[in-house]
Amino acid sequence: MPTVTITRRAHFSSAHRLHRSEWSEEKNFEVFGDCANPNWHGHNYELIVSVEGPVDAETGFVMDLKRLKDIIQDGVVADVDHRNLNTEVPWLVGIIPSTENLAVAVWNRIAPELPHGVRLASVVIRETRNNSVEYRGEKEESR
Amino acid sequence: MPTVTITRRAHFSSAHRLHRSEWSEEKNFEVFGDCANPNWHGHNYELIVSVEGPVDAETGFVMDLKRLKDIIQDGVVADVDHRNLNTEVPWLVGIIPSTENLAVAVWNRIAPELPHGVRLASVVIRETRNNSVEYRGEKEESR
Amino acid sequence: MPTVTITRRAHFSSAHRLHRSEWSEEKNFEVFGDCANPNWHGHNYELIVSVEGPVDAETGFVMDLKRLKDIIQDGVVADVDHRNLNTEVPWLVGIIPSTENLAVAVWNRIAPELPHGVRLASVVIRETRNNSVEYRGEKEESR
Amino acid sequence: MPTVTITRRAHFSSAHRLHRSEWSEEKNFEVFGDCANPNWHGHNYELIVSVEGPVDAETGFVMDLKRLKDIIQDGVVADVDHRNLNTEVPWLVGIIPSTENLAVAVWNRIAPELPHGVRLASVVIRETRNNSVEYRGEKEESR
Amino acid sequence: MPTVTITRRAHFSSAHRLHRSEWSEEKNFEVFGDCANPNWHGHNYELIVSVEGPVDAETGFVMDLKRLKDIIQDGVVADVDHRNLNTEVPWLVGIIPSTENLAVAVWNRIAPELPHGVRLASVVIRETRNNSVEYRGEKEESR
Amino acid sequence: MPTVTITRRAHFSSAHRLHRSEWSEEKNFEVFGDCANPNWHGHNYELIVSVEGPVDAETGFVMDLKRLKDIIQDGVVADVDHRNLNTEVPWLVGIIPSTENLAVAVWNRIAPELPHGVRLASVVIRETRNNSVEYRGEKEESR
Repeated sequence: MPTVTITRRAHFSSAHRLHRSEWSEEKNFEVFGDCANPNWHGHNYELIVSVEGPVDAETGFVMDLKRLKDIIQDGVVADVDHRNLNTEVPWLVGIIPSTENLAVAVWNRIAPELPHGVRLASVVIRETRNNSVEYRGEKEESR
Repeated sequence: MPTVTITRRAHFSSAHRLHRSEWSEEKNFEVFGDCANPNWHGHNYELIVSVEGPVDAETGFVMDLKRLKDIIQDGVVADVDHRNLNTEVPWLVGIIPSTENLAVAVWNRIAPELPHGVRLASVVIRETRNNSVEYRGEKEESR
Repeated sequence: MPTVTITRRAHFSSAHRLHRSEWSEEKNFEVFGDCANPNWHGHNYELIVSVEGPVDAETGFVMDLKRLKDIIQDGVVADVDHRNLNTEVPWLVGIIPSTENLAVAVWNRIAPELPHGVRLASVVIRETRNNSVEYRGEKEESR
Repeated sequence: MPTVTITRRAHFSSAHRLHRSEWSEEKNFEVFGDCANPNWHGHNYELIVSVEGPVDAETGFVMDLKRLKDIIQDGVVADVDHRNLNTEVPWLVGIIPSTENLAVAVWNRIAPELPHGVRLASVVIRETRNNSVEYRGEKEESR
Repeated sequence: MPTVTITRRAHFSSAHRLHRSEWSEEKNFEVFGDCANPNWHGHNYELIVSVEGPVDAETGFVMDLKRLKDIIQDGVVADVDHRNLNTEVPWLVGIIPSTENLAVAVWNRIAPELPHGVRLASVVIRETRNNSVEYRGEKEESR
Repeated sequence: MPTVTITRRAHFSSAHRLHRSEWSEEKNFEVFGDCANPNWHGHNYELIVSVEGPVDAETGFVMDLKRLKDIIQDGVVADVDHRNLNTEVPWLVGIIPSTENLAVAVWNRIAPELPHGVRLASVVIRETRNNSVEYRGEKEESR
């Protein structure tokens, strides 16, 4: 059977801030720039989830796209849309909401929900028109 | 001389919330929905400014686009990008930061800065991919 | 009060065909080109609805965007999405589903549903990336 | 020589429906949802074909993009644009026109036409703004 | 009959430069910035032409979009695509190829070619993602 | 640590031409088509740079995106924007400015500037809406 990747896009609008509480305001602004603003800022995030697997001979589907849409909506969008990523999302507690960390956390939300026989292939999060991040489930030694 | 409209687009990312402090939380959520979230949310706003006037015979310009870009940057984007629209912008104090009110406030920031001989024609603010607002400087009796 | 225009975008995917049953197949293909294909073709239509009115002083809204979204969904998208525009839409019976006729028909569906105090300003339908149509409610003598 | 991937995008507008004739209407709607509509629906499909190979030292090309454009046009777009994918395309007969099956079928149309020395790397088909599929020529055991 | 506006988009890629030969290089760079570069630069221009008129009762068309496409292609794109706007386009001789002047010149190319009963409503030229110009056929006293 | 890819997009507008001086004009037009025009043409290029590495536990960053933006701006955009790719860019001398060659040259500009611990993963250059090229640093035997 051919292995195909299917991709579903979703959107959410959230407030966030990048900072470490154990650092001074000066150090936070030095490292995180304007993203350290204590009064928050926000984005329209674009979330692009790709899943791969063999094509089912009967349906012509890798998986039901409606089910993938629901997994993304229920496991991610419902928790983050019109919310504050630093203070209101249980599965982001203690995590600096950089786009990188967000992509890894979203991966961990979606991967266990997928049906048997398909694999999560990629989570892309676009934070602005010019900045995005992709996580493909790989790990390596830290720098 | 032909009258031409020139349009410049800019972007900013801000946090905001829609609420009236004299209303209960219940009423705020009833009227403003998720936008009333007290912990804020945010957007990547797209700001599209159009200016019209005769084309200068020597330069072929309605106005120097670099100057229009600077007016938008200095008068609007520098104040709102990576900021909280409810609490950090002097010219939005006391204004509910709906996209409508934002467009009118941006108009009032830009119109007086334009060079002699051109007119502000339109301010469009796109809040999400599907929602936008345009103000063309017109007024009428309230409902 | 400032008069502001708010715009909401929606999408639908439909099959259609352009043809007049009283014409021969030859004439249909001559006038309508590939769009006359008797086995149908289809598009992802983009529907962009603009409404204008004064900004409400309490809410900062021209009208509740959620209500506009529902009017577009219930009055238009629910009837045309994943449908055949020639055979399945009661309010398109007897109308050649050109993008022009579609825009006028959508206007007539939405205008009467708007709340008191706001006016329908524009209906844009984008049929392909390069082709679109706008209707602003104006009429004139036929050619 | 550096190995580079070149990508060409094309578009087509088609009608289709997802259904299995040996299933009841009830089962078809249960599995395929609105896509089972017997009166068809349609899409503006976006087709994105990527080819990889070494860069020719004389021309600076992996292959002549004009030739790739013609292969896509003659082998795919000419057969599917303004057509019904279920009934009018010889190379889709007997295949449920899901986006997955479409991507695999397009791969099989394009791969044998490529000039010596380059390889088909990816076929992406975007069915709507939020749904797309990619096939990279890989196969695996069915579920 | 309803009056509808139809819009067709086209694209061309050209080299140009902004300068006045009677000015010094210093003055040219002062007024035109990087656009004065004597070795040229270039853009992917987007050309968006809108035509308005009554909808024909038989065809449902304001005018045949194929004809509008041909008018744009033959009268504009064929002359400017992959060309130098300063030196190779007969109808731009002696005109500084600013986006404003380009829009007016394109208007003058297209308006006389339209069929009886329709009017050219707007010519938009997008020079970059953030800069565009619109001409609607209006004239006024110069500044 | 998870390995994440971060992507930054930039833009530049340049003139260029494809030709080999040792070939006749006829041969140049035969191989390069309109791109051989001796009076140049140009494009709005989109440059998309992806870098991969482990996520830093303290910052949540693969690398400071501001630094990546500066590397792209200083090493590439400052040299090519509003310039002639054939005659004005020191690191393109003697190279036919095809999109393929451009991507490889940009890779060689950016890779040595990246901080320790991250790897350049991909350089994409989009020349027009429908044509793009990707280089991932791989080499192979020439055809």
